Order: sequence, then structure tokens, then C-alpha cells
Amino acid sequence: MPLDHNPDKKDFKVVGHVKTRPDGVDKVTGRAKFGADMFAPGMLHAKILRSPHAHARIKSIDTSKAEALPGVKAVVTAADFPDNPDLLANEELVNIRYNVMARGKVLYDGHAVAAVAAVNPRVARQALKLIEVDYEVLPHVVDVELAMAPGAPILHEDLRTNGEGDEPTNVARTIEIGHGDIDAGFKEADFIVERTFTAGAAHQGYIEPHACLANVSGDGSGEIWCCTQGHFMVRDFCAQICGMEVSKLRVTASEIGGGFGGKTTIFIEPVALALSRKTGRPVKLVMTRDEVFRATGPTASSSTHIKMGCTKDGVITAAYAELHYQGGAFPGAPSDMGAMTAFACYQPKAVKALGWDVVTNRPKQAAYRAPGAPMAAFAVESVVSELAAKIGMDPIDFRLKNAATSGSRSSYGPTYSDIGLVETLEAAKAHPNYSIPLGPNQGRGVASGFWFNFGGQTAVSLNVNIDGSVALSVGTPDIGGSRASMCAMAAEELGIPYENVQTIIADTGSLGYNDVTDGSRVTFASGLATIEAARNAKKVLCARAAKIWGIPEDAVKWEDGCAIPAGPNAGEFPPLSIKELAAQAGETGGPIAGHYEISADGAGPSFATHIVDAEVDRETGRITILRYLIVQDAGKAVSPTYVEGQMQGGAVQGIGWALNEEYIYNDKGLLENPGFLDYRIPVASDLPMIDTQIVEVPNPGHPYGVRGVGETSIVPPLGAVANAVAAATGTRPQELPVSPPRLLKLMKDQPLAAE
Amino acid sequence: MPLDHNPDKKDFKVVGHVKTRPDGVDKVTGRAKFGADMFAPGMLHAKILRSPHAHARIKSIDTSKAEALPGVKAVVTAADFPDNPDLLANEELVNIRYNVMARGKVLYDGHAVAAVAAVNPRVARQALKLIEVDYEVLPHVVDVELAMAPGAPILHEDLRTNGEGDEPTNVARTIEIGHGDIDAGFKEADFIVERTFTAGAAHQGYIEPHACLANVSGDGSGEIWCCTQGHFMVRDFCAQICGMEVSKLRVTASEIGGGFGGKTTIFIEPVALALSRKTGRPVKLVMTRDEVFRATGPTASSSTHIKMGCTKDGVITAAYAELHYQGGAFPGAPSDMGAMTAFACYQPKAVKALGWDVVTNRPKQAAYRAPGAPMAAFAVESVVSELAAKIGMDPIDFRLKNAATSGSRSSYGPTYSDIGLVETLEAAKAHPNYSIPLGPNQGRGVASGFWFNFGGQTAVSLNVNIDGSVALSVGTPDIGGSRASMCAMAAEELGIPYENVQTIIADTGSLGYNDVTDGSRVTFASGLATIEAARNAKKVLCARAAKIWGIPEDAVKWEDGCAIPAGPNAGEFPPLSIKELAAQAGETGGPIAGHYEISADGAGPSFATHIVDAEVDRETGRITILRYLIVQDAGKAVSPTYVEGQMQGGAVQGIGWALNEEYIYNDKGLLENPGFLDYRIPVASDLPMIDTQIVEVPNPGHPYGVRGVGETSIVPPLGAVANAVAAATGTRPQELPVSPPRLLKLMKDQPLAAE
Repeated sequence: MPLDHNPDKKDFKVVGHVKTRPDGVDKVTGRAKFGADMFAPGMLHAKILRSPHAHARIKSIDTSKAEALPGVKAVVTAADFPDNPDLLANEELVNIRYNVMARGKVLYDGHAVAAVAAVNPRVARQALKLIEVDYEVLPHVVDVELAMAPGAPILHEDLRTNGEGDEPTNVARTIEIGHGDIDAGFKEADFIVERTFTAGAAHQGYIEPHACLANVSGDGSGEIWCCTQGHFMVRDFCAQICGMEVSKLRVTASEIGGGFGGKTTIFIEPVALALSRKTGRPVKLVMTRDEVFRATGPTASSSTHIKMGCTKDGVITAAYAELHYQGGAFPGAPSDMGAMTAFACYQPKAVKALGWDVVTNRPKQAAYRAPGAPMAAFAVESVVSELAAKIGMDPIDFRLKNAATSGSRSSYGPTYSDIGLVETLEAAKAHPNYSIPLGPNQGRGVASGFWFNFGGQTAVSLNVNIDGSVALSVGTPDIGGSRASMCAMAAEELGIPYENVQTIIADTGSLGYNDVTDGSRVTFASGLATIEAARNAKKVLCARAAKIWGIPEDAVKWEDGCAIPAGPNAGEFPPLSIKELAAQAGETGGPIAGHYEISADGAGPSFATHIVDAEVDRETGRITILRYLIVQDAGKAVSPTYVEGQMQGGAVQGIGWALNEEYIYNDKGLLENPGFLDYRIPVASDLPMIDTQIVEVPNPGHPYGVRGVGETSIVPPLGAVANAVAAATGTRPQELPVSPPRLLKLMKDQPLAAE
Repeated sequence: MPLDHNPDKKDFKVVGHVKTRPDGVDKVTGRAKFGADMFAPGMLHAKILRSPHAHARIKSIDTSKAEALPGVKAVVTAADFPDNPDLLANEELVNIRYNVMARGKVLYDGHAVAAVAAVNPRVARQALKLIEVDYEVLPHVVDVELAMAPGAPILHEDLRTNGEGDEPTNVARTIEIGHGDIDAGFKEADFIVERTFTAGAAHQGYIEPHACLANVSGDGSGEIWCCTQGHFMVRDFCAQICGMEVSKLRVTASEIGGGFGGKTTIFIEPVALALSRKTGRPVKLVMTRDEVFRATGPTASSSTHIKMGCTKDGVITAAYAELHYQGGAFPGAPSDMGAMTAFACYQPKAVKALGWDVVTNRPKQAAYRAPGAPMAAFAVESVVSELAAKIGMDPIDFRLKNAATSGSRSSYGPTYSDIGLVETLEAAKAHPNYSIPLGPNQGRGVASGFWFNFGGQTAVSLNVNIDGSVALSVGTPDIGGSRASMCAMAAEELGIPYENVQTIIADTGSLGYNDVTDGSRVTFASGLATIEAARNAKKVLCARAAKIWGIPEDAVKWEDGCAIPAGPNAGEFPPLSIKELAAQAGETGGPIAGHYEISADGAGPSFATHIVDAEVDRETGRITILRYLIVQDAGKAVSPTYVEGQMQGGAVQGIGWALNEEYIYNDKGLLENPGFLDYRIPVASDLPMIDTQIVEVPNPGHPYGVRGVGETSIVPPLGAVANAVAAATGTRPQELPVSPPRLLKLMKDQPLAAE
């Protein structure tokens, strides 16, 4: 049940009451079209040849036999993605191009080397076998600490941590944040805990493999249909990598079978585009699950050293972190996010966090729900609970004592606006789950989590149809029910029923630029733009009523879906409904619309507190999650059931990451478990019903108080589960996933005192 | 060579210089997707059962055997389009529904009676044969004069010309326009010519038959892909006929293989929609050519009585017309347009025109380039040339003497703004074609023509991409190259190259309402909206530059694709190009866009003068067009080669209508020539190169002076050809088409004095 945090006591009629999901029926009946569901006459099928080595120099590629195979229409390699000045000026895109198609060296098992377009998938697969690549195999490194060690195999000869003077390295970047006197803080402390934690890489585990259909015309213009979290990103990246003008490429986002951050970049789209350009035919390219695991981003893996101190009455005096993140073969591991989020739930007097962004011979990491934060929180929340235990304080009380509050300075710098961490802690403490007695081998873990949330660029158009129904056009792919939320906010603002608004995800030719659906930004930013577009449409509607009535525009106001005369003209005319105004649009000035473009600020961070009860089977090492409670601040929950779904989904992914999901590389640096049978994500039978409680502390940066909810929920689970396991076993897991063999070893090797 | 009528001496850089057609390559390489080119997984194929009678009561329809055929998924009849209150309030839509699917009676050969959706077209065709319809055949009428005669078979028992008191009739409507004392005018005349003319119905002859794919979800929302001149019209009509909320239906316009007015309404779309709703599967429905001829609108046929008088020095003193138009089975024959346009080229002292809108047992007429005008002009221009001959005046001089001029009162009421008829007459007279000597059996005909042109509702969005290229989103299907013109106008206004703008036809979910592409309105109205959207985008661009420079927004102006500081800040900063501003959009406020919605007025009428030289084979009756010149006022020609194409296309269609195209109904009222082999449109070998001369009298209602050009060109040909034949033979054709048998008969029966 949501708490009452609506200070204006705004009487929402639609927002908060969304029941029907607009995309629901299509998704359960199979009508919804995903990435692989598009067809075009004369379409070719493409397959990608991938590196069998973790690290190797490409001495030569001979595609002639493949090209000669009947049915093969084209083969592309890195040579088909030549340099262009705009591209070369953008280091990130140069790396994306290298990731999309290896040039010079392959950097990980599964790195794309060449691609074939053929009349059917069978011929394409045959052709891959005929491509001859001469490799010189190089030493490899897949572990972050080994990659940072002296003498490690170097991935990029030109990579320097601090510029030209340095030696070649695998450390792409370091970061330091903090404030206060950290040494003084530790001196002030009565208790100090210092530990090192590692968390493995976890894949986003979306059910739908990457898929696209590209279609390039003889005049060089093209179209892409694909599953993505951001079709404008796909357009801009592909255009630059393929040397096209942005306006010449039109991208349509399909429905998406999960993304979770993993579809915020491109992998196969430029390859299909290049093959279509070369053949003059539409080209479909669909990844296999093996390819998804070997060549698309999991999150970064991490090695994190934490040192925290507190007084005996529970005040955190100092907090220090070193975060080593490996992000695969290219720079970009979110050690910055890790450093910034590590202590963001608390107000240590002094704080210092150092981050390392390290490359290794693994697939380039991609965003995964709150990228960089869960592994930092795992480490910090483990230490926080250990500190609380040391001074004999309830772990929630300890967190409450140190919790970040509205108006306090965040550990990463800025001052918080209205935030709801305290509210989540108080609600968690009051929740029945927190007082259920536990049995033998059972433990209860608590952890809090933080995520920034993001705003970003958004464009929305709202059009009023002839019957007064509304067509809303947004550019952020719907990965979690955002169409429903947009319908609700437009309906709320216009004073019309939810069912009268239809929201579509417009293609890139039909709407202004939209940033990717990420950073938990859509309900906030697209919602903000939707509300403002609706307000602009209301102005037009009022102006039309004024014209009909022959009174000034400012003598009309909008109420309950109708224009009504106001001020001196109040009561002079009966209200004109949106339907009546829409029917007269042609005579009163033309189509009625509202538009809004924004680079949205003020997303407002989100906090959550999770409580997990776990039971350990001391014989097998299996951990059973008995109960799981999420309390999270959603600002205003536009669609409460979807908010709960986001919270539950994030927690489940965090549980999988904590307990079972693991990349297994052999000594050649090859991935041994590229499939869901061996890379084990939780299934329904592994889990209890996840309990949820939405807290609503309105975000002052949004007209309805909305804040993002999609990412915060994956931040606490790793720490919460580890704390529960520690409580159940008396043994603190410092290495995730705490899989059965690892837990058995841990219980045998490192018995700690019970907390 | 265009005349110089650019009073502002505006130095257009893009407008007037368009070379490349954005849709050209796709259309010649086969990549462009037309109505029948869309596929969906699980798609069914539909076929329509059509009436074999011209007029019959449907006593019963038994679909049970068809439904029982394996592979048949659904059958629909009129019962599947039930009444709803919004529909019943709209008489035009009630008629469209009746035309789409017969209810109670069939009204013409080919009227749809039922439709089947099956797993493939073969099964669907088989199923049609299993539908048992019990007809009571009724007397029929297909001729306009017979339909008006007492005792004629009545199509609609409830149709009354003047309301309740009247007897049932086939005259749906009468119209009268005019001014001045018509009797006094004729008394003043020295010469009077009075004649009756008939023109047959002509089909628009588009190459692409109607085709659509409809796809309705389990939640009742749906999509249509179809070839149409107006997908917003398709959406609104289908939604109302099928009882859907407009926002729940999304329509995408395919490329269109010709429309010419014939795709400004719906025929098959609601049928496919109803079948998809009934089956839960996508349904494709593609007409055969036979169906196109039997059941889609040709133009109205007409019987026109003209009486005109002039003084011996060539002043037209009175002009009188009676126009009987048959529009097929439902009201809507454009006799109003015929009456209004009949004398619009001239300034008779007194004018009176009466129109009759008559229903017959023929397919419901549809718009065809300048609907209603060509047959009226055929009659009037024949008489005008005859009057000129009577007083021995050159036919161009005679027209010049009486020509409508800027600021004069039009024969249909309003005062003309700046118009270009005199300019077309003068240019025609000066053209070399007008003085080439003619040989035996050759004749030269002159005719002028007028069309109103239209504005209407239009919504346009313009978005600036990250690289400074521009995406323009319009909602008017491109039937004649309008994408090129929109690119040109946006580029002109923004000061960027034509190639940097890409124009797409947005679907109905992505853009505000747009009227149908008709009335020669698109280059004018969508162009106007494009220019205004670009101006709005320039305001945003200037504001962004102001923000970057830290100066007031009004201290920035836009010049040559760049923001430059102006006024007191002039020269203070280097210019910022659109590319530079676009690259910084995220930091300066978000996506950069301009939008515009309008109900456009001021389209500005268009005039043309045609000169045709024809040779008659007195033995076979074959008429050969030797030369054909079109001089037309385009306002400002945005894409001159396309303007010429429009002019040539209209003239060719007019030549076909004048010489060969003809509906042949047998005595049962059944169409005997429903195919291009027997319904003979001109092919390239029938025609000379059509000469063109663009006159540019800027339209004061458009920022660049643009006026529509697509329709006027079909107005003069019927009269011009008839005048040429009259000159060649000494025999005036009063019945079109003047096909070989008809000409032979004419030359034998009715020798007139040579003019």
C-alpha cells in the first residue's frame, strides 16, 4: 500500500490507477512484432563469423571461397567500415565499430570477424566455414586483477591511463571522488571493517536475442527494424559508422523482449546495414543465444576493497572504497558509477572512492540496470551490516542513523532534493516480514540501494483526433510499460479517460531525437514531455473555444476535459468538450496538437531497502530465498502494478547475480557456458513471491512527483542476500555468485564468528 | 522557360532547382513498397463477392457453405458493419458504408455483397462460389438523361431532391450559381451559340489496383497498410464504419501507383478490417483490374447544355449552362464544381449555371483531377471557339478579350487574387506551335481551363538531427513528387542543401491530422506548413545560439544556414552552423524541432491554355495528336520538371478521355470492358512529346508564391481536342470520346460549315 506522500493532495484521477496495459493483449496473443518478426521481399539472411580465440592478431582473412558459394550474396569484414572524419573524432564510436567488427586483432572469444549475407540461413552458415582467417594467437587476460598486474597481456597498444608519457596499460581510466578528511574520519572511528569483495559479470539475460532487418536503397538511404532500447541511438551510431547522413537512415524499434541496459548500444545493426548496402537487398540478422553470451555485454565484473569506520553509537565517520571494474575489451566499465553510488545511501563525515576502468579479453560490458552500482552496494552493504553487528545495533536502525536525507550533501557531491531513503527504512522496519521468527540455518539480510536516475533528451508529440481521442507519439522504446504511463499522464492532464489515449513509439523519421530508454528515465522524462505537450494542446484547445465563443483566449480555462469560459465570461457559454472541439478543428484553425522537446533535468534519485530471508542447505550449499521484501520510493507511482513489476524484476535479477549467474572462462579465455542451461538465471520455481511496498516521496523535479523506478531495485539484492547468507551461516560471502560449490568451500574454509 | 513573375526578385537557391527525386531510385529499382507489398505472419487472403446485376434486391445471403470450406476463416456481409450513432449522423459515411458492402439492394454491376478471408487466394475464390445470394432483379438505369426522366427506375426509395414532400427521384441535388441579368445579356448579344454536349465517364486509370493489409488485435485496436491518397481519411472513415475509436486505428500509407483522385475514398479497407477483426489474423485484400473497373469510381459522365452570346466585337454578354452529371449509385456527382468552373476563365456580363447531381446504376463516381471541370470546359470551350469563329476572331484573342484577370469577379462569385490566365494566353499565342502551318485533314484547337485549388488541414513536424541534417515529417501521401518539393522548401528556408533534408510520409499515429492529397493542395498547403515549421525551428536554433553566446534571443538572426549575432552584438561571435548547433542540442535544451498545424486558405486558382494540332484519318476515323502545348501558371514552380510532368500527365489523361476511354454497358447494365485491353488509355506510341511552358504568377497566399498544378492540366484537353477535330473536319464533336466509329458517324451525319 503506497504511503501518502502527495503534499499537494492532488486528486489524481488516472495516474496511480492504471489497470490495462496497452501492449498486453498483443504480447500474450503473439501479435506483437519483435526484432526477428519483420520480413521484406527478397530478404537475405546474414550470419557472423566469430573469433575462436580470446586474443589474437588477424594476419589475413580470405573470403573468396565463401563468396564463391552459390547463394552467397556478400561478405563483409572491417574493410567495409572505412574511416570517416566524424567517426574518427569520436573515440567511443571508433571502439563500437571495432567491437562490431574486429580490425587487426580479435579481443575476445566471439568477437565478430566477418559476416555473410546469403539466400537462406543454412547457406550463410556454410559460408562462414569457408572464410579462412589466419590468426596469431596472443596471450590473454580475463581477470581484472591480473589485467592490472605488471606484465599483463596488453589489449590496446595505444591505451594509456594518463596520456602519452605512460606505458601501455589495460587501465583505461581512473576516477576519484570524495570529500572530508578520510584519515581523520578513521581516527575518529571506534570500529573499522575492511574487506575485499568480488562480483562476477552477469548477463542481462533478456529472452530476445538481438535481431534486425536492414534495407538500403540504391541511393544510399536506408531503414533498420530492430529490437533496441534506443532507435535514435541506433540511427546515429550506424549512420556514423557506415558514413551515412543521419537523415538518410530511418530506424523503427520493434517490440523488445527484454533489454535491461543490454540493448543500449549496437552490435549487429551496422553489419546488416553494410551487407544490405553491398547486396542492394534487405538483410536480416538474428543472433543465436551462443552469440548473445559470447559477444554482447554482460555487466562489468568487479573487485572492490572497502574500509569503513563508525563510532560505538553508530555514526559512520569514514568510508573508503577502491573499485576495480573490468569492462571487457573496450574502455567504459562503470567504475565511475560504482564510486559515486558506493556510499550514496549514507552521510559519512569523510568519504573517498577510487575507481579503475580496466579492459580484459572479454566481451565489451554493456549497461545493466544501475550499471556499476550493485557490486559496489554488495561490498558496502556487507560492511555496513557487519559494522552494525559489531556495535550490536539493528541493521535498519544503523542505516537510519546514517541515512542520506532530503537536503543533505550526497557522498558524490551534489545536495539531495526530496528523497525517500528514510521512508523506505522506516517502512521496512515496520513491515511484518521484518519480525517473522527464523528457523535453523535461516538468516535475514538487509540492504539499501541508491540510483541517480536520469532525464535526458526527449521529444513528444500529442495529436487530437477528430473524435476527441488522442494519439501520443513518443520516441523511447517501451521496455517496462511506459506506453501505459504516458497514456495515463496525457489523460490526467487533459481530463479524459485513460482509454482515449493511444501511445505509439514513433520511428526516427517521425519524431525528434530521443535518448535511449535507460537511466530509469522514461516515465520521468517522456512523462514530463507528455505532460507539457498536453498542456500545449490544452492551450490550443482553449484558443479554439475562445474563437468559437468570440472571447479572449485568456478568458478560457480547461477543466475536466472541457474548455469553459472563465473570468468575466464565466458561465456565458456551456462547456465545449475535447470531442466537440476536435470535430470543429478544421474550421477553427486546423489540426490540434501539442509538442514538447526537452533535455530534462531533475530526475530525482531513488532509494530502496530490501529485506531477504534465506535458508542454507549446509550439505549441498544450496541457498533458498524464503521471503523477499522490497520497499522503494517511486516518487509518484503512475502505474503501481508496473512499478511493483519493475521492483520484483530487479530483485530477481539481483538474486540470480548473487546466487548462480556466472561466466565460466577456461584457461584459453573461451566462454564455456554460453547458454541458459549452464548460465543459470532464476526461474519461477527458484523464488518466493517477491513482496513489495511502494513509498511515494514526490520528486520535486516532476509535475506529478514521478521518479524512475527501474534500476534501483537491482542495487540492494547482492548485499541483502550476502547479509542473509552471512546471518544464516556465520560466514560472510565475499565472492559472488555464492553458488553451492563456493558456499560449501566458504563454510569449510573461512568460518567467521556469527554476527 | 518560366516567365519572370517573381515580384520580390527573391533569389531562390533550392526552390526552382530541384533535380533529384528522393523516391526515384526506390521506384525504379523495385524497392518501393506499394499497397500489395506488405506481409504479416499468419496473414489471410481476402476476396470480395460482387453483384452480377446492375440493380437487384438481395432477398437472402447464405454463407454457410463457404464458411464450411476448409481454409476459410471468416465471411463478412453488411451485417458485419452494424449501425452506430456517430456513423448514422453522417450521411456521406452511411453511403460509403453501403458502397463498401451492399445492404438490402445491390446498386450496380460489381457492387460488393460479401467477402471471404481464407488461407490463400485460391481457397478464397472457391469460397466466393459457395456463397448463395438470392437476388430479385430490378429495372436499372445507367444513363443520366434516362435516370432523370419520369418513370425511371429509382435507386434509393428515400432519396428526394427537395426534402420530404417530393416524389422519390434519382436527382440527389440541384445547384444554381450566377449573377447579372442573363436574359438582358442574351438580348445584348450579336451572336448566340447553343449546343448540348455529352462526355462519358472516364476511369482514373491508375496502374496500381487498390490493396491493403489490415491487422486487428484482440483488444480491438488495429492497423492498416494501404495505398491511398489520404491515410488519415482511411483511418477516420474505417474507424467510424467499424465502430472503433479513431486513436485505436493506425494507418500507414504505402507508396502509391497512381491515384488521380480515385484513391481519395475507401473501398476495401473496412472489409479487410472487419475480416481481420473476425479472424484475429492479418488480412490482405487486393483488387483485380476487373474489380477496379467495375467497382471503383470513374469520374461522372455528363450531359451539358450551353448557351453563350457575344457582341460582334467579341465581348461575351451572357453565358448559360445546364449540367446533368451522373455520379453512379450514390449522391456526389460534382455538378457543383462543373457549374462553378464552367465560365471561370471568362467575365461574361451575366452568367447562370445550373447543376444536377443524378444517381444511376453505375459505380459511385470518385474524384478525378479537377472533378467536374473537364466536361464543363469541353462544352464551354467548344462554344467559345465557335463564337470566336463566328465573328472571325482568333480564338486566343477572343479568350484574351474576355479573360478573367487579377482582381476581377469570378463567374462563381469571389474576386480573384493575382491570377495568370492572361499570361498563359499571351505565352500560348507567342509560342512557335501556334504558327506552324497545318496540312490537309489537320486542325488546331485552343482551350483554356481553370481549377480552384485547395488548402485544407495539414500538420508538419521538422526535426534537426545530430549532424545538422533534417527529418521532415508530413502526412500527405506523395502522389506526384511532393517529398522533393517539401525537401526543397525546408532547405530553402533553413539555408541548407536540398540533399540534407529527408521527407517521410508519417503514419497516422505519428503526426497530426492531414486532409487527403487532393485539390492540388499538397505543394501549397504542406509546403506552407513546412516553411512555417522551418521558421519555428529557426527560432529554436537562434535561441540556442543566443544561449551559447549569452546574448538575448532577439539579438540573433538566421542567415545561410547559420545563426549570427545581430544588432548591437553583430560580429561579436563567429556564425554557428546548423550542424554545430545540432551537435550541442543536448546541452542547450534538448531536441531542436519546428512544428506547424494549419487549415490553409489562399490556395490561389490555377489557369492553363492548351493548343493541340490533330490530324484526322477520314477513312478510319482515327485521330492523331500531332502536337500538344500546355502553358500553365504554376505560381512558383518548386520542382519545374515535376510541374511539367503534372501538366503532361493531365493532358494525356484528357486526351484519352476525349478520344478513346469509354465505359461500355450492355442492355443489362453490365460493364462489358472492365480491363485495359478494352478500356483504352493512351500509351506512349499514341502521343507526341507534350510541350510545356510554365508561367509563374506568384500566389499571394503562399510565402514562395506556390500554387497547385496537378489538376488544371486535365481541364482544357477535352475542349482543345474537340476544337482541333472540328477544325480538321468541319464537324464539331459534341459527344466524347470521339472514338473512330463515333467520328466516322459524325462526319457522315452532321457536316457543319468549316469554322
